[in-house]
Amino acid sequence: MKVFIEPIGKLINEFTKLPGVGAKTAQRFAYKIINMSDEEAQTFAEAIINAKKQVKYCSVCGNYSETELCDICKERPSETICVVKEPKDVIALEKAHEFNGVYHVLHGTLSPLDGIGPNQIRIKELLERVQKGGVKEVIMATNPDVEGEATAMYIATLLKPLGIKVTRLAHGIAVGTDIEYADVSSLSRAIIDRRTI
Amino acid sequence: MKVFIEPIGKLINEFTKLPGVGAKTAQRFAYKIINMSDEEAQTFAEAIINAKKQVKYCSVCGNYSETELCDICKERPSETICVVKEPKDVIALEKAHEFNGVYHVLHGTLSPLDGIGPNQIRIKELLERVQKGGVKEVIMATNPDVEGEATAMYIATLLKPLGIKVTRLAHGIAVGTDIEYADVSSLSRAIIDRRTI
Repeated sequence: MKVFIEPIGKLINEFTKLPGVGAKTAQRFAYKIINMSDEEAQTFAEAIINAKKQVKYCSVCGNYSETELCDICKERPSETICVVKEPKDVIALEKAHEFNGVYHVLHGTLSPLDGIGPNQIRIKELLERVQKGGVKEVIMATNPDVEGEATAMYIATLLKPLGIKVTRLAHGIAVGTDIEYADVSSLSRAIIDRRTI
Repeated sequence: MKVFIEPIGKLINEFTKLPGVGAKTAQRFAYKIINMSDEEAQTFAEAIINAKKQVKYCSVCGNYSETELCDICKERPSETICVVKEPKDVIALEKAHEFNGVYHVLHGTLSPLDGIGPNQIRIKELLERVQKGGVKEVIMATNPDVEGEATAMYIATLLKPLGIKVTRLAHGIAVGTDIEYADVSSLSRAIIDRRTI
């Protein structure tokens, strides 16, 4: 005898597709759905469909947008472009409330072993934006891992001949971290990138 | 400027309704959905709708079922009824592969402070099943907490005059637990319920 009846089994199976969700958690989620009212479940399902249907990419920066041009590209000065790997990096940076320019989402970083070269990510689009003029600085905000660093270097090499200032996000000890507990990589970067006070 | 565009924000909000899901996890789930293909997202949404639409309650035992009578009630001998609080308890007991009788799902336990009395849970339906005859034993498998114990005792009082054997799941030290690390309540129950070997 099967443990779950088919519609519940199928729903559990769908939930296990979410990141970090195992069989037990998926089961709890499924029971939660079954205990919802019909309207609540309908709203939930519609939110999934609508997110897929309504979320498009901004034609300029490549970030998620409901419209042809995203709100950030519409409203902000485009002298400074901050280059990130994924749309969720834009969210993280926006929450810091420090940057008031526009973004460029690469949708990936260079990773030759996975077959991701310069043509698989949005580097060409970045060059086109810069070549149109008006851009003074490009901030490379890719992750401080091997792929992120390589991508930042590669893009910097392409942009520098165009006379554009290319910068990189500062890496070092996280704010609030005791030096005693800082990881070695952050600490060594903090020493290398030390500043005059 | 809002951080998330509306369809993403709405989806994140829906995911936070799931048990144990906070803003950060909901955001990861939402991005996972957006990165799915249209068909995958459609299947996900349909699984939610179908689970709500197709999952009904078995007219006899009250467990989830796609049909009027659930598979367990259809196929198994009904001499022994195992009484549980919720449908998920049936799943847990089925996984133990030890019980081959039928179930009765109360959909709650007595909790006067929350306004849950005998008429709010499926006690009347249990009595009707027993009064129809053919039932020899009722196993009380409610949780070993205050409400579960009270409910088991209350139902036992109603069933005993009918000449039915009423039993309770054994509580004691969990299999695999060292006595050194067993919790006090389980250990004291294990002493009280000790058996001759």
